[in-house]
Amino acid sequence: MSRPNIKIDLPRLSGELELLARLSDAEPPAVTRILFTEPDLQARAFFRGLFADAGLVVREDPAGNLFARWIGSEPNWPALGTGSHTDAIPFSGMYDGTVGVLGGLEAIRALQRSGWKPRRSIELLLFTSEEPTRFGIGCIGSRLLSGSLSPESAAVLKDNIGATFDEVRRRAGCSGELSAVQLREGSYAAFVELHIEQGPLLEQEGIPIGAVTAIAAPAALRVRLEGEGGHAGAVLMPQRKDALCAAAEIVLAVEKAARDSGRLDTVATTGICQVHPGACNSIPSRVILEIDIRDTDLAARDRAVELVRQAVAQGAARRGLDAGVERINADPPATADPAIVNAIQFACRELNLACKMMVSRAYHDSLFMARLCLTGMIFIPCRAGVSHRPDEYSSPDAIGRGVEVLALTLAELDRAE
Amino acid sequence: MSRPNIKIDLPRLSGELELLARLSDAEPPAVTRILFTEPDLQARAFFRGLFADAGLVVREDPAGNLFARWIGSEPNWPALGTGSHTDAIPFSGMYDGTVGVLGGLEAIRALQRSGWKPRRSIELLLFTSEEPTRFGIGCIGSRLLSGSLSPESAAVLKDNIGATFDEVRRRAGCSGELSAVQLREGSYAAFVELHIEQGPLLEQEGIPIGAVTAIAAPAALRVRLEGEGGHAGAVLMPQRKDALCAAAEIVLAVEKAARDSGRLDTVATTGICQVHPGACNSIPSRVILEIDIRDTDLAARDRAVELVRQAVAQGAARRGLDAGVERINADPPATADPAIVNAIQFACRELNLACKMMVSRAYHDSLFMARLCLTGMIFIPCRAGVSHRPDEYSSPDAIGRGVEVLALTLAELDRAE
Repeated sequence: MSRPNIKIDLPRLSGELELLARLSDAEPPAVTRILFTEPDLQARAFFRGLFADAGLVVREDPAGNLFARWIGSEPNWPALGTGSHTDAIPFSGMYDGTVGVLGGLEAIRALQRSGWKPRRSIELLLFTSEEPTRFGIGCIGSRLLSGSLSPESAAVLKDNIGATFDEVRRRAGCSGELSAVQLREGSYAAFVELHIEQGPLLEQEGIPIGAVTAIAAPAALRVRLEGEGGHAGAVLMPQRKDALCAAAEIVLAVEKAARDSGRLDTVATTGICQVHPGACNSIPSRVILEIDIRDTDLAARDRAVELVRQAVAQGAARRGLDAGVERINADPPATADPAIVNAIQFACRELNLACKMMVSRAYHDSLFMARLCLTGMIFIPCRAGVSHRPDEYSSPDAIGRGVEVLALTLAELDRAE
Repeated sequence: MSRPNIKIDLPRLSGELELLARLSDAEPPAVTRILFTEPDLQARAFFRGLFADAGLVVREDPAGNLFARWIGSEPNWPALGTGSHTDAIPFSGMYDGTVGVLGGLEAIRALQRSGWKPRRSIELLLFTSEEPTRFGIGCIGSRLLSGSLSPESAAVLKDNIGATFDEVRRRAGCSGELSAVQLREGSYAAFVELHIEQGPLLEQEGIPIGAVTAIAAPAALRVRLEGEGGHAGAVLMPQRKDALCAAAEIVLAVEKAARDSGRLDTVATTGICQVHPGACNSIPSRVILEIDIRDTDLAARDRAVELVRQAVAQGAARRGLDAGVERINADPPATADPAIVNAIQFACRELNLACKMMVSRAYHDSLFMARLCLTGMIFIPCRAGVSHRPDEYSSPDAIGRGVEVLALTLAELDRAE
């Protein structure tokens, strides 16, 4: 079948992105949409409506992953997957993840409008909890789908008020057993995720499309520091075991581990610092830190992790504190399949768009989908590389070009045997 | 009139302390009792019952300060005050403040049982919000009583969900205008507060009673740091303006300002560290620190405050952050009146108890009552000097001796012209 004639409905897609951004627990332009909170459930209902309009067959699995399938002429062949996530960390922006879901839907609608018919079914995925906000671990949906997280481990994950993932997903109406979530091999022939770059390179170089060749390997640590509390007026300095002072040294050691790595690609962040009891006139007795360390090179990342572990042990020993380091996750990097990269490059040539080969430093569901099938990612530029902030922005034109490339990439993958 | 024959009902007093500790938002042995929350309102009702049993005349002012008066034979003379607070910071213990209120009540009951009659009325005070937990500033009740805080400033104080003190106290049933709270001069002839030491000296030296000669001057600062957020994977280290890394340097500068002061009496604590947005994979864009700095010497304390201000300015400039330092409060120290110290020493001699002259490093309502009348404090030992923690402890015997000294001190002050 010949190349489909793709026409993106940009006003509709932009409007849908705006509507989705309103489903949020933060004041616009900030977006807060945390797994199975009211805005997340509203977003799911919003998508079910859009999927029905597009004539897609919808399924939700027991983990809350949402699937919308355009059935192909060969419905028993492994499908082509696309999609992303719609959850948003507190006070973030409106493009991270959402561009891959609404853009994936618009790619399907544009293919439908062109009169083109797929042989393989094309399935849009909306993954549960790509962000680690609620349960401390990201990509819960895609980890379960790919067998990278056991149903038993997922069930007992706890949120910050002690509710388990199993309780919370059932309360949100997801029935059935988590053991039924993992997909069998051969469910998909390929998976392609459209996403904003979350970095500055495409914008700086004036290139509209990035074809991702590898996804960086993130590691997350939770550090617990137990000192001794007491009255801020009464306990003299030599007697203190202040957990926040110890935590401050670790926060700076985390920064130093990345800065001194000799590699621009090493990044390390302490994003969470919870202080107990948290009163102005009380010495902090306990602090919890959560630390995120990444690199495109596994060995370099693990060196940084080791430096942070050493800083915790040495600081705790020097100050007489009790300390523990828990590895929340430490995944290996993923490599995109050359066949997918080739299909993306083919689509760019057809559309006369420049395409840059690049790595992703951010975490994506594609990291786990890569364990299930051939996987690749399409990046589009975002302003100043800003993400996870209210001023995150990608222009409608940039998004439209990404959707065109995605649609043609799916058509090209469908053409291949 | 002759010296009253004091017999303390220790089992009753211990039982009342235990009952009060149960009125809490934390699991025992921890106590959390924050101004105008359910446990605080329950505690107020509990005290109204005890006051009625003791035949005291009860009044509540528009700020929620509670007064219970044993009317003397000369009801128009300036009264003698005693009392303390019953609010408790999160996860603290059961003796801070409560010993002064329940102990003050037992002192009155013991004087009543002895058959002794006062000339001056004796008034027990239960001060509103000695702890700064809810509104960021401590001693709201005694500040208003003494005119150290204006009614207009008190009314607009905000808690962490933006409710004003004026809204919250009205919702708790405190009617009338805050302008009516300040007491006229001459309301009290003297005020004496019984309190646990919250430091280790009495226990270390085996002395049952401390007579406080001065109360240290606390200063509290709120530091706001505004950097730039972003995705923890995507923003490279040289581009970052991480507000938590800047905050970590300040936390360590606070500790250093106290440690390097050359004075054992200088203490400095960062008790609050709030991180925005507070997600593991997001660079902190904003941090709020609350810092408490104390010394018995005003100049030494102000030097430490200045060092912290410099650290904030220098750190923010070096990292390209926006920063602000707000002085929440910075009160001058208070000196106890020699007449009160003499009365406490007299009571100790009568009871054959050793008495140590000492300073208080902790904040007390007495700091503000000293602006209204002659003021003093009686300290009793607490285990290992621990306070503001669940394992805070004073033995029934230690408490009983403190109550005896308080009762005799009040009788001695009543005897004086």
